[in-house]
Amino acid sequence: MNHIQETAELLSRFPSIGKKTALRLVYYLLKEPKEFSQLLAHNLQELHERIAPCDTCGNLTDINPCAICNNPKRDQSLLCVVSYTQDIHALEESQSFNGIYHVLGGVISPLDGIGPEALSIDRLQQRIATGQFSEVILATSPSIEGESTAQYILKICRDEECVFSRIAQGMPMGGDFEYIDKFTIALSLNSRKNLV
Amino acid sequence: MNHIQETAELLSRFPSIGKKTALRLVYYLLKEPKEFSQLLAHNLQELHERIAPCDTCGNLTDINPCAICNNPKRDQSLLCVVSYTQDIHALEESQSFNGIYHVLGGVISPLDGIGPEALSIDRLQQRIATGQFSEVILATSPSIEGESTAQYILKICRDEECVFSRIAQGMPMGGDFEYIDKFTIALSLNSRKNLV
Repeated sequence: MNHIQETAELLSRFPSIGKKTALRLVYYLLKEPKEFSQLLAHNLQELHERIAPCDTCGNLTDINPCAICNNPKRDQSLLCVVSYTQDIHALEESQSFNGIYHVLGGVISPLDGIGPEALSIDRLQQRIATGQFSEVILATSPSIEGESTAQYILKICRDEECVFSRIAQGMPMGGDFEYIDKFTIALSLNSRKNLV
Repeated sequence: MNHIQETAELLSRFPSIGKKTALRLVYYLLKEPKEFSQLLAHNLQELHERIAPCDTCGNLTDINPCAICNNPKRDQSLLCVVSYTQDIHALEESQSFNGIYHVLGGVISPLDGIGPEALSIDRLQQRIATGQFSEVILATSPSIEGESTAQYILKICRDEECVFSRIAQGMPMGGDFEYIDKFTIALSLNSRKNLV
């Protein structure tokens, strides 16, 4: 295997990058000035050294505590519980949340051998027990695993003095009945809201 | 911009990788052992140092002359002229060619300011003039630019003592009339072959 093929093989290990795409990426790099490959190499080299979970919330970050936990303008009494760091990114992009986060590190999934003890649920319970939060939004995904993870947290934290809420489910924005699965349609009907 | 966002920004410069995909790739790297990021970094760091065009054919390679030019089992009297190094890869994958190659480095494209002098056509003419080749296959792509590049090469090399041929055009394997453009259909009709 030559160096082009080796590099392509490494790139093809990424999700959503097949062998052909990987090879195209290598040829792209070879066409670009070598500074780009080197800058990318430098970034990747340092990635694991520079990024670590935030001690407070578990968000992957290059400063500790992370920029969200550390921001005095954010509502420290509103907690949003997510499964993965990338969920924080998506929620931040929506610009509709100004509280702080807690990253579980996954969902409870007995089939994959992931129990509550594998997630950051103990730590969540400790954070809630401080009485810091007036509301805890359970924002695990609307899947069977996400739902049971939310239910489990609710069960073990029920006695805490705060409101627990769950993200709403229904038709996505711009969604079309023709293309939306039947479970989402059923959900969106069953959770319908009265208009004044 | 933090290190995650920086790395994602670099990855999103690749063709076919958008911002969301780039971010997913970074999170994938963070989930994998750090050895993978470092191996990839190491490969990218060396890419431009290790890869250079073959002095004989122009193929991008880490040995010189390249493994194809240097292979005594390949037919040194059969030359296939392609536009880009990646075309060699595609042709090699098809396992239907056992000659050697010549990489032009592009196609003649007056609109992009690319004239014959910007391509490796002089060098091609020199190679053909040695009398080494019994056949030269012009395998530039079946586009306007690829076609005129082939015609140009034919014109300037016409007096050489060898056969010039052009890759066949028509319906692709598994192609369906419903999905193939009208120009390809017209071509495939006009270039029809008699059956015995």
